[in-house]
Amino acid sequence: MARASFIAGDWGTSHLRISLCDAAGAVLDGSTGPGAADSNGRFAELFDSLTARWQSPDAAAPLPAVLCGMVGSTIGWTEAPYVACPAMPAQIAAACIALRGGRIHIVPGLSCRNRYGAPDFMRGEETQILGALQLSESLRKGRCLLCLPGTHTKWVVLQDGSVREFFTAPTGELFALLREHSVLLRATSRDAAAVDSDAFSQALVRFNEFPQAQLLHRLFECRSRQLSGEFGAQEASAYLSGLLLASDVHGALAALADVGATRTVTLIGAAELTSRYTAALACHGYDARCIDGAAASVAGLVQVHRHLAHTVDAYAAR
Amino acid sequence: MARASFIAGDWGTSHLRISLCDAAGAVLDGSTGPGAADSNGRFAELFDSLTARWQSPDAAAPLPAVLCGMVGSTIGWTEAPYVACPAMPAQIAAACIALRGGRIHIVPGLSCRNRYGAPDFMRGEETQILGALQLSESLRKGRCLLCLPGTHTKWVVLQDGSVREFFTAPTGELFALLREHSVLLRATSRDAAAVDSDAFSQALVRFNEFPQAQLLHRLFECRSRQLSGEFGAQEASAYLSGLLLASDVHGALAALADVGATRTVTLIGAAELTSRYTAALACHGYDARCIDGAAASVAGLVQVHRHLAHTVDAYAAR
Repeated sequence: MARASFIAGDWGTSHLRISLCDAAGAVLDGSTGPGAADSNGRFAELFDSLTARWQSPDAAAPLPAVLCGMVGSTIGWTEAPYVACPAMPAQIAAACIALRGGRIHIVPGLSCRNRYGAPDFMRGEETQILGALQLSESLRKGRCLLCLPGTHTKWVVLQDGSVREFFTAPTGELFALLREHSVLLRATSRDAAAVDSDAFSQALVRFNEFPQAQLLHRLFECRSRQLSGEFGAQEASAYLSGLLLASDVHGALAALADVGATRTVTLIGAAELTSRYTAALACHGYDARCIDGAAASVAGLVQVHRHLAHTVDAYAAR
Repeated sequence: MARASFIAGDWGTSHLRISLCDAAGAVLDGSTGPGAADSNGRFAELFDSLTARWQSPDAAAPLPAVLCGMVGSTIGWTEAPYVACPAMPAQIAAACIALRGGRIHIVPGLSCRNRYGAPDFMRGEETQILGALQLSESLRKGRCLLCLPGTHTKWVVLQDGSVREFFTAPTGELFALLREHSVLLRATSRDAAAVDSDAFSQALVRFNEFPQAQLLHRLFECRSRQLSGEFGAQEASAYLSGLLLASDVHGALAALADVGATRTVTLIGAAELTSRYTAALACHGYDARCIDGAAASVAGLVQVHRHLAHTVDAYAAR
């Protein structure tokens, strides 16, 4: 473990992914643990038990650590107040909250007033954005449109590497709720994996035939096409996924038309999700560039680590 | 009980409302029972036990009965196949399915291919529409727009008293799902009654400031306005209700612009719901005429009873 330099942790609502990194940011070892919602306030204990094997008994000080995600929320280890947009990467890194005399830092989330005049928030995605800026040089200049699909999908506008604004769509949450609890899908389809199928593609095409229609007026099709015998359970679930993504993508591109002049969206997330958004974007003639979400998280934490190592004495001390 | 003429039953998914009526259709007595989903197939037993006190031991035959709703679905007493739109009231009445040698008739639901090219269905609402046509003479001529708000809101186009087409919005279901299961609303707000408040009206206004936006991009406000301290639990719940109704009404009026030339919508439902839709319609300069949903059901069953009494010997026999 001679090369070990710091610990990078993405501590979200439902999962903790923690990594041991070298000075260049390469991951040497990794582990997982319970999310912030399931940590029952025992963040210090969990952190220590998951990282004990990485700490050297001979070292003058424990390895420094950077953590992002819900660990910095009101239900987290300690609250790291939101940084208001527009926010440069250095501002985000500089607003980290120190724990344990500066050996652990927690990355703050971002806030903005979105295009609809509403307050909006992210926590965890800001670190993925910092990582994407490292992984993709083209994001650092001009206006760029990012999408981070998930439970609460984030659409983000970058301007010369600064996070200008964003808004949130609970696309993944709505899919899960409807699939698990709604009478729109028959009981059997709730267990069916919503695989990329003809029904998913059909939903994209059919939604875009009536782009001005409200999503509310298309959802019942998941049920009616089963009643009519057109769909089985698997198709209905994939169709629901397609309708939701089509609505999300159509609405976001329309709202952000002034940004998307390049007709390229950078997608940050798991491949299973980004591939579906790629298909939804293609319906509008947009290209997608995909960045793996876990890789973006680590790259962002590495970036914050470098900033702290240069600016915070207590963090840099060995 | 000398005046008792027939039994009218609205047997929906979750409730049965059954009434004893005289020849003119006036309700003499009433009772309630479990919905079709909770009847475990024991429709005959439930019907007999709820109506036994209305039957005269001296009568040559039991009182005739007309039932509508999910009792005629595949999970009901017997299946009454859907009548395809356009459908005249007499066609609906003539397509009733007879049970017990014609003493009981079940009203069929309606099917159509809706404006979005999807199959669509209703069961129970067709009877309320028949009732509304009786209760409101103005609906019998020209094009009229109806809305039956509920778990699955139906938007219906009438042409000279015939049901031309309709489509469904699961507005009420989505509200219940989001309020009960979503992280968009804090735990406490799930119990808060979504009363008509400033937040409901605010949601109508704010939604209509960006009518082209997708509902998906506005829902997160229910959470973010709580995080920012702007809303308490009660407000967030009412705001969600307002967003959903605004989306439903805006989308329906846009889709049915060719129908709504009179800028009047007839709302059929419970007063608590129709008053909210009235407010949402007013934002678009539309007037609402409200008809109580239970009264419309009975009036529709009376209308079917009259048709059967004139055309079906076994039903008319005493």
